[in-house]
Amino acid sequence: MKLTEIIRKKRDGAALTAEELQFVAQAAADPNTPDYQLSALLMAMYINGLDARETTDLTLAMAQSGETADLSGIAGVKADKHSTGGVGDKTTLILAPIVAACGVSVAKMSGRGLGHTGGTVDKLEAIPGLQTSLSAADFTAAVNRCGLCVIGQSGDFCPADKRLYALRDVTETVSSIPLIASSVMSKKLAGGADVIVLDVKCGSGAFMKTPADAKKLAEAMVTIGKNAGKRIAAFITNMDRPLGNCIGNALEVQEAVSVLSGNGPADLETLCLSLAAKMLSLAGKGEYDDCKVLASDALHSGAALQKLAQMVAVQGGDPSCILKPEKLPAAAYHCTVPAAQDGFLSAMQTEQIGEVCVALGAGRRKKEDAIDPSAGIRLLKKTGDAVQKGETVAVLYANDAALLPAAETLLSAALTYAETPPEQPQLILDTVC
Amino acid sequence: MKLTEIIRKKRDGAALTAEELQFVAQAAADPNTPDYQLSALLMAMYINGLDARETTDLTLAMAQSGETADLSGIAGVKADKHSTGGVGDKTTLILAPIVAACGVSVAKMSGRGLGHTGGTVDKLEAIPGLQTSLSAADFTAAVNRCGLCVIGQSGDFCPADKRLYALRDVTETVSSIPLIASSVMSKKLAGGADVIVLDVKCGSGAFMKTPADAKKLAEAMVTIGKNAGKRIAAFITNMDRPLGNCIGNALEVQEAVSVLSGNGPADLETLCLSLAAKMLSLAGKGEYDDCKVLASDALHSGAALQKLAQMVAVQGGDPSCILKPEKLPAAAYHCTVPAAQDGFLSAMQTEQIGEVCVALGAGRRKKEDAIDPSAGIRLLKKTGDAVQKGETVAVLYANDAALLPAAETLLSAALTYAETPPEQPQLILDTVC
Repeated sequence: MKLTEIIRKKRDGAALTAEELQFVAQAAADPNTPDYQLSALLMAMYINGLDARETTDLTLAMAQSGETADLSGIAGVKADKHSTGGVGDKTTLILAPIVAACGVSVAKMSGRGLGHTGGTVDKLEAIPGLQTSLSAADFTAAVNRCGLCVIGQSGDFCPADKRLYALRDVTETVSSIPLIASSVMSKKLAGGADVIVLDVKCGSGAFMKTPADAKKLAEAMVTIGKNAGKRIAAFITNMDRPLGNCIGNALEVQEAVSVLSGNGPADLETLCLSLAAKMLSLAGKGEYDDCKVLASDALHSGAALQKLAQMVAVQGGDPSCILKPEKLPAAAYHCTVPAAQDGFLSAMQTEQIGEVCVALGAGRRKKEDAIDPSAGIRLLKKTGDAVQKGETVAVLYANDAALLPAAETLLSAALTYAETPPEQPQLILDTVC
Repeated sequence: MKLTEIIRKKRDGAALTAEELQFVAQAAADPNTPDYQLSALLMAMYINGLDARETTDLTLAMAQSGETADLSGIAGVKADKHSTGGVGDKTTLILAPIVAACGVSVAKMSGRGLGHTGGTVDKLEAIPGLQTSLSAADFTAAVNRCGLCVIGQSGDFCPADKRLYALRDVTETVSSIPLIASSVMSKKLAGGADVIVLDVKCGSGAFMKTPADAKKLAEAMVTIGKNAGKRIAAFITNMDRPLGNCIGNALEVQEAVSVLSGNGPADLETLCLSLAAKMLSLAGKGEYDDCKVLASDALHSGAALQKLAQMVAVQGGDPSCILKPEKLPAAAYHCTVPAAQDGFLSAMQTEQIGEVCVALGAGRRKKEDAIDPSAGIRLLKKTGDAVQKGETVAVLYANDAALLPAAETLLSAALTYAETPPEQPQLILDTVC
């Protein structure tokens, strides 16, 4: 088999066999394969597409291209969740303890933030002492001890996806549904969970801008998961505004603790309970509605908050930060953003708000960038809220006061006002089972 | 302007502007531009195509991406010819002297052979002493002195095309009509002639296998030439069998001399007179039919042969080789290939015959390969000829006797026999003006 023959076949619109896609994944993982051949193939895949069977085969091949997690040392069903990336999305910090408190293990690998979207690993690392880089044995032991553990992805997982993703990023071949689906799902399959719940974000702060595209992506990923023998479902959820009120790593840990203390914003609590209930239901804990009650009880009883503190301790972090979140790192400077007019906040350019967070030091423009755990944004008003001119709509936090004026201008530009309240879209737009 | 924006535009099927195609040519000529972006763009161009206007704009941009020939020091109209590559195609050696003998200058840059197709520069270098690498001043002086000069392409011509061509070769993006047309024509435009006659080969020994594809390519190239203000026409000619009877560098020079002495094979003489007449007619020497008479007179009077000898002398070669071609390098070994059965030679796998020539040492598999000027094939029978079993159909020449047996097997396998004579296709299948 030759890569050029595979390129020719996809160039001419033919479907590739499982063997050919396995060859592609091996070639992508091999540093001797030239970039120019892989990028020609990616463009042919982008334009001519991959059908559902090809997408599954490519995903399985990429999942097998490197190391895979061995969760066999963990008893019972293992559940995982994946978000396609949003602004203010700290759901893992909330739902993983809920699910674990209900008796289903969460052994999860998460990513770091890049661009306008944050990453769970960065958020966890805002907790002093917490380690996100554990050996396989320590990871298994941690899950067996407290029912959950969240770590970063090791260097050897899905090398084929890593190579192809990096090339897609610089060759305008990112926005292809089969390529996005296979990239996400290869990492999920390599992660080894039995149950996978996907949170496909949709709107101004998400990669998928329309519900139709989000649904296509959700369907593609659910199909792959089912073909790979997983119990899987997807929610399509609104990302036309940030999720919750806080954006920025320590601020989001604080907000997660608020939710787990029963004082969190309603949108965030609702979404976490829904995702957690779906994970529990797929894990065999009962019907979805019954699982919602289970999840709500775990949250409101404080059991989930205790689980989170236990996980932080097991991963080497200071659990007192969870019970007293004011101990988390705080920024030295802040400024307020006033409402530009009387009326209602009618829209938020959510991707731009994510970029403001990066500008404040909370995120990365390039993979190598360092981040400031305490920087970020607290929103006092969100889309639909009534405002009076001059009233504070947001507080910006940074450790470099010089960053604040430009960030304030940027944030103000991301907000739109109107005289009448906007129509409020649903939080959960659709589900794919 | 950014290359990624241009890639995205072509990926989505939009037409690129002249400015964008100029940016592409500059990026291709810039060694800092990554291969993977160029190859992604080439695949998008391959699949989504380039319209006639885009193809012209890309061609002009590639022609201007490096050095261009300055023929202003040569008086009168300058004519050029280009063949898309065939087996046994020594037409330049014959028609250039004919055209020059009729008073139209031929200041021509030619290529070397690669794979199954030969190149004029290699054929000329079979003549002892002949130089194909001349300075611009010497080139101009040579044309002014004897009316013709044929040299190799210098390193600085069309760097954008060189880069893109090399990438197309390894990314399955060669066989695109707009990309082939722009590659060929960028070199022709940089060559600076006023008149261009194209010989688009079609059949088992050509890159274009069907008359329909050959016509599309011819039309694309003629359109570019006209848009660039050239007097241009194309012939689509049969390459289902080798042209003439000899393949291999010194053998082809010998055969060219035979044609110019009035003793050449009919197919080769006919094609050369037709191409030469078209060049003369476009150069203003009269109607095509009248120019055919002029060309035939130049050939049969011996004037063209004298012109060739004069060119060889001006380029430092030994002109006595032209008048006494037995002085050309000859191979030490030969073997004969017998007919496999009684009947008629019904088909020749011409590309495979070109490969036999490479196997004998006469051609190159890679650009860096050295070639043997004396190796090659002399065909005693061609498609349509009656044969008796055991009768010699071809003689193979090599300087390494060990190469002959495998070459004989390969050549025999390229020949098909039948009991009845095959239908004889026309030599000139079509013309595009």
